[in-house]
Amino acid sequence: MNNDSSVAALATRLRREATDLRAGTRMPSSRALTERYRVSPVTVSRALALLVAEGVVVTKPGSGTFVAERRASHGAADRSWQNTALGDRRVDAEGVALGLIPVPDGVIPLVGGYLPEGLRPARALAAASARAGRRPQAWAAPPQEGLPELRAWFAGLTGCAPEDVLIAGGGQAALWLALRAIVPPGGPVLVESPTYPGAIAAARAAGLVPVPVPVDDEGVDPALLAEAFARTGARAFFCQPTFHNPTGAVLSPARRTGVLEAARAAGAFLIEDDFARHLSMGAAPAPLVSGDAAGTVVHIASLTKVTAPSLRISGIVARGPVAERIRAAQLVETFFPARPLQETALEFVSSPAWPRHLRAVSAELRRRRDVLAAALAEHLPDLEIPSLPSGGLYLWGRLPEGVDDVALAQAAWAHGVAIAPGRPYFPAEPPAAHLRLSYSAAPDIDALPEGVRRLAAALRATR
Amino acid sequence: MNNDSSVAALATRLRREATDLRAGTRMPSSRALTERYRVSPVTVSRALALLVAEGVVVTKPGSGTFVAERRASHGAADRSWQNTALGDRRVDAEGVALGLIPVPDGVIPLVGGYLPEGLRPARALAAASARAGRRPQAWAAPPQEGLPELRAWFAGLTGCAPEDVLIAGGGQAALWLALRAIVPPGGPVLVESPTYPGAIAAARAAGLVPVPVPVDDEGVDPALLAEAFARTGARAFFCQPTFHNPTGAVLSPARRTGVLEAARAAGAFLIEDDFARHLSMGAAPAPLVSGDAAGTVVHIASLTKVTAPSLRISGIVARGPVAERIRAAQLVETFFPARPLQETALEFVSSPAWPRHLRAVSAELRRRRDVLAAALAEHLPDLEIPSLPSGGLYLWGRLPEGVDDVALAQAAWAHGVAIAPGRPYFPAEPPAAHLRLSYSAAPDIDALPEGVRRLAAALRATR
Repeated sequence: MNNDSSVAALATRLRREATDLRAGTRMPSSRALTERYRVSPVTVSRALALLVAEGVVVTKPGSGTFVAERRASHGAADRSWQNTALGDRRVDAEGVALGLIPVPDGVIPLVGGYLPEGLRPARALAAASARAGRRPQAWAAPPQEGLPELRAWFAGLTGCAPEDVLIAGGGQAALWLALRAIVPPGGPVLVESPTYPGAIAAARAAGLVPVPVPVDDEGVDPALLAEAFARTGARAFFCQPTFHNPTGAVLSPARRTGVLEAARAAGAFLIEDDFARHLSMGAAPAPLVSGDAAGTVVHIASLTKVTAPSLRISGIVARGPVAERIRAAQLVETFFPARPLQETALEFVSSPAWPRHLRAVSAELRRRRDVLAAALAEHLPDLEIPSLPSGGLYLWGRLPEGVDDVALAQAAWAHGVAIAPGRPYFPAEPPAAHLRLSYSAAPDIDALPEGVRRLAAALRATR
Repeated sequence: MNNDSSVAALATRLRREATDLRAGTRMPSSRALTERYRVSPVTVSRALALLVAEGVVVTKPGSGTFVAERRASHGAADRSWQNTALGDRRVDAEGVALGLIPVPDGVIPLVGGYLPEGLRPARALAAASARAGRRPQAWAAPPQEGLPELRAWFAGLTGCAPEDVLIAGGGQAALWLALRAIVPPGGPVLVESPTYPGAIAAARAAGLVPVPVPVDDEGVDPALLAEAFARTGARAFFCQPTFHNPTGAVLSPARRTGVLEAARAAGAFLIEDDFARHLSMGAAPAPLVSGDAAGTVVHIASLTKVTAPSLRISGIVARGPVAERIRAAQLVETFFPARPLQETALEFVSSPAWPRHLRAVSAELRRRRDVLAAALAEHLPDLEIPSLPSGGLYLWGRLPEGVDDVALAQAAWAHGVAIAPGRPYFPAEPPAAHLRLSYSAAPDIDALPEGVRRLAAALRATR
């Protein structure tokens, strides 16, 4: 067995070493490297092969390895002409990027939208992917709509038919496809306010105009939604009716029919981002798509949230002409999600590890939510949290009057805790200052109370 | 070890069986299924678990497995309202889809843009992916721009710096990102004529207007390119200077500087799709990006063509503001390519299997090209092939006057050979009827002469 991280580590060291030497200088022999870095000859030869491929060194058979000629430095070139060519269409990725930036050691992460590393099914995924990668057709093209069994599995979550499911590459890719397929550039799209910043960023990058519709702890109000459709002529409403990000709200039974009817009356689509179905602490309500025969709902379910960031597999349920448009868009934009990932996902959800994993996630999220809520009640009673969510990864709290959420987040970082300010969750001006606190990101549940203590100290410092 | 294809096969049988039964009917016991289908109890229980997850059957502890209640059929619903909501923005994926449709047994494939199965490094990829999937961080998020070592590897192909490389999810995803990042909706983009239909489809899906610039067997003429820039005000030229699809042409040394200068004089970008670099039968010229300090060239290199359809990993080289725009667009549209695929690609290209694979591919492509060319000379002398390509997967031939390429492709299919008619390769009206013949797709080299004989018969039949 090769230790692959040691190949990479050695390559990094040798790359640095070569950069400091004149072109043509002979590198130490393989044997010398083996001894100096206490690695196997195989590791040395693989690291050198990497550097040869990169053009950092060259090998001359029989005489050794030498530092290659430097490429011309491009650093000083003037590329400002590009600004004219590109024009004013900057893509604002900050809403997405913020959630993906790793938090340095020593800072407690109360941010981030994934499970903590200890709760990710890394071993089961490794086993599933090893089996998947060995199949005869593993690296061939999958059927365009995805593996039939995986489509059937996603269909089973919604009560729809397998042929209504398109396998896509993660929730973000799915909502990008759905938004662009339905709404033309320049067109309005209704979104909950607050909502997931990645949806705002995707809508804007597609040239769409997100129009906020307020939500409370029962989700969106059908009357407000109907009004927004009438005022804007929007063709789509993007929503997260189950464990909404950031509030954790579930669309109440009383409002479900009204919300669907508002979309139908407007001749519009409802894009249901069902990202948190498997992050439930008890039962999750049926998705909106399950009662929808008219094809109003385009439903997105993702496996990433409940597993790990790199299992980028989702299922889009769509019926009617919109299904064809989304399918064609995916084909033109990316062809298809790589088959080994589809096979890995299928392996995992049809293995005995899957129900075990769901139970473990559910129990741990409940524990973490309760620990975070108790710490907030004790140390930060000023943060107003209307009700505890029964699923998802976040608490959403309203700050006292006069506290600036962005300034507080900066102060919190300086105090050793990372939190998400509320502002990026609002498509327009926020009605009040909020915070989103993730109970899932910290490696250890015991870090949560300490994180809250640091946050409380930061709040005192900013006042 | 579980035999996973037998789980899937059994699930398919049982799904069909359950569909024919009334809801509530008891399914045969696990033991009975084990005997009837001669599979292990583990296979039975995994297949049943899959059907439970899909909602096809339900298990009642202690009493057995039963056919579930049917979901309401959605088939008859009227979804024509969607046409109004979606409007006239159909995505035409046919140019892409044609290349991905599997050819049935009995039809000789002279279509398709991938290596034949026997030449794909399936075993090496399986080994690489098994190692990759087991790494501690395999399923975590990769660095946003991609794994550093993989960026360095792609950089080494071009002489650019590792920090100029963004890892993306396959060549199609990369060219989609580059086109959209550079050209605003409604804007023109210059493309070679003929060119890769997937580029035409992506440009149109992004709302761009492809404008053809003719190529001959030395690639594009700088004077014509300069004229097209001046006439259209286009900000980008999409081209494949090395083993162009479909003609196989290489941009001649005499024209390289002129082409770069035409783009620079126009203040425009040149998108270099370097898809076939590793499909060379001898040496491939340096990519255009390697001599470009001004950031004019956005370069796309992909690993998919030289390995297998599902290793969807590519590297985009971009310098200056355009690099930031492409990076932000990828983040907003899909986050990042799954880390296990990046690790697999890195494992493979830095293993001893990689140079061995390249040698094998090069030798086999040369053999196949020669066999196909000889068969054409013998059986189809009317097909005019100006010069044999020294890389890539295709021969491009001009049909005699009066022969319709699309009609011939249909007749060929009926005669048991699949070929690509030339029409989809032209962004506007074709100047003449052409065929593209792939020598890489047929499983066996011996099928090539027989394919040509069938094509000759089809040509006789259509005349």
